[in-house]
Amino acid sequence: MSLLVIGTVAFDALETPFGKTDKIVGGAATYAGLAASYFYDKVKIVAVVGDDFPQENIKEFNEHGIDTEGLQIKKGEKSFFWSGKYHNDMNTRDTLVTELNVLADFDPIIPDSYQDCEYLMLGNLTPKVQQTVINRMKNRPKLIVMDTMNFWMDIAMNDLLDTIKMVDVLTINDAEARQLSGEYSLVKAARKILTMGPKYLIIKKGEHGALLFGEDKIFAAPALPLAEVFDPTGAGDTFAGGFIGYMAKVGTVNFNNMKNAIIFGSALASFCVEKFGTERLINLSQEEVASRVQEFVSLSSFQIEG
Amino acid sequence: MSLLVIGTVAFDALETPFGKTDKIVGGAATYAGLAASYFYDKVKIVAVVGDDFPQENIKEFNEHGIDTEGLQIKKGEKSFFWSGKYHNDMNTRDTLVTELNVLADFDPIIPDSYQDCEYLMLGNLTPKVQQTVINRMKNRPKLIVMDTMNFWMDIAMNDLLDTIKMVDVLTINDAEARQLSGEYSLVKAARKILTMGPKYLIIKKGEHGALLFGEDKIFAAPALPLAEVFDPTGAGDTFAGGFIGYMAKVGTVNFNNMKNAIIFGSALASFCVEKFGTERLINLSQEEVASRVQEFVSLSSFQIEG
Repeated sequence: MSLLVIGTVAFDALETPFGKTDKIVGGAATYAGLAASYFYDKVKIVAVVGDDFPQENIKEFNEHGIDTEGLQIKKGEKSFFWSGKYHNDMNTRDTLVTELNVLADFDPIIPDSYQDCEYLMLGNLTPKVQQTVINRMKNRPKLIVMDTMNFWMDIAMNDLLDTIKMVDVLTINDAEARQLSGEYSLVKAARKILTMGPKYLIIKKGEHGALLFGEDKIFAAPALPLAEVFDPTGAGDTFAGGFIGYMAKVGTVNFNNMKNAIIFGSALASFCVEKFGTERLINLSQEEVASRVQEFVSLSSFQIEG
Repeated sequence: MSLLVIGTVAFDALETPFGKTDKIVGGAATYAGLAASYFYDKVKIVAVVGDDFPQENIKEFNEHGIDTEGLQIKKGEKSFFWSGKYHNDMNTRDTLVTELNVLADFDPIIPDSYQDCEYLMLGNLTPKVQQTVINRMKNRPKLIVMDTMNFWMDIAMNDLLDTIKMVDVLTINDAEARQLSGEYSLVKAARKILTMGPKYLIIKKGEHGALLFGEDKIFAAPALPLAEVFDPTGAGDTFAGGFIGYMAKVGTVNFNNMKNAIIFGSALASFCVEKFGTERLINLSQEEVASRVQEFVSLSSFQIEG
């Protein structure tokens, strides 16, 4: 039994109103893998990097209990690199540089030792590659969660639709839900998307929290109101990783467990944005996580007497 | 003991993607008064109309137990009229016509029988008029809730700041909280606004729910995800009226009661937007309200085991 995370492991260079970084380690699988590791001890990664990727960061994965046998290291090649600048509202950003490098012809090889995967997190990546991973699993995992973004809707909609058909949970943001469905109302958008394959849909609304649709029910999770969002990079990946990590921990796929998984995922994402890159995600204690989750409980609980 | 609502009682002509209306009855005090009447039976209105205002609508107030002694009817004059057109997203609208009419020189006279007011709802109106009402109360009400909007921040900021100083709860939307405080982060905005006078701040976020700040705590209430918003006019006034009506019903001013008051206000607002104008607010049963409140409970509750 294990939890497999596929996605990018990469370099980012970030600029926010609070400062800027040189190349630091980022990528969807990095954030999602680290997040999942707080709840589940058998996390495995499939990704590709160049030989410019620091050994110490691979060691960091391993120290979090993450199996990196599926992390391909391409000799003489460079890791995927993305550079972006956030606007003052932190909700919009400009891409300054995208260098695909090793990602251009990424073939996601699944080590035999990964075939015990029960929980599969498809981090944001070309839909074709996400699909290849599903097809290469000898047994269909118990839960497949897929993250994606508007970019793939723009340039690879058919591939995206084919891949969506194969997953259990889709996580996208509100603008993406509208784009994918052609519906403005998120309720109508969700109804339509739930006919496209996934049994559950999570709509991420950033500072406004998240909505879970499925089993004819809706759950609205708040986001923690933060005085400062230092760097939003990786928050969505962290959320998704925390979500599936918690699901793997509890082991039963149902709406109620997903509600809690969203709260745990949101709690980890709220740490992620407090510092640049993965800095805040590296050394969290279980007490910090538990106490942050309690903040979500206080934030959203009320008692109406019948 | 009574609950006094001040605000506009007026005509609106509305156009939404679902249709358009002729002149129908609207106004902040209309929506807030009707909403409050579902929770509290001693609601009184102070407002001004012209003699073009239909007697049957005054009768409708009275049938909801609303005291209209303070509703001035100006002979030979016309009621305030606003006409607006909503865009497809329902979040933005254009004002087509604003005719102040009787509102231009509105002097809010408080009948003696209203001096038992313990709960005062200052519906959206010129801050000077809102202030006059506070000054004319012989005893300071136990709870003063003030609603306002960006329009007054643009043209009467000093009056607005003077009035805000005198109230307990301020309700504004997220853009207005940012404008009033000069802070983008809603947490920072709230901290600043809570130094301006009010002990509590409610930030209304439309389809994203509402945030309550006060007593060093934060509560995040969801909005009910709706397939269709037919007409958003009056939703904020309905929310505020339901909020203060519930507070008057429970009678103790504290954060916990305010959390519930926000849920009840949100429930009434979710009815309001289902039809044009006040149509849906006129004939709600207590069972409908209770069942809608239960939808909010299901929507936002989760159980994390310690």
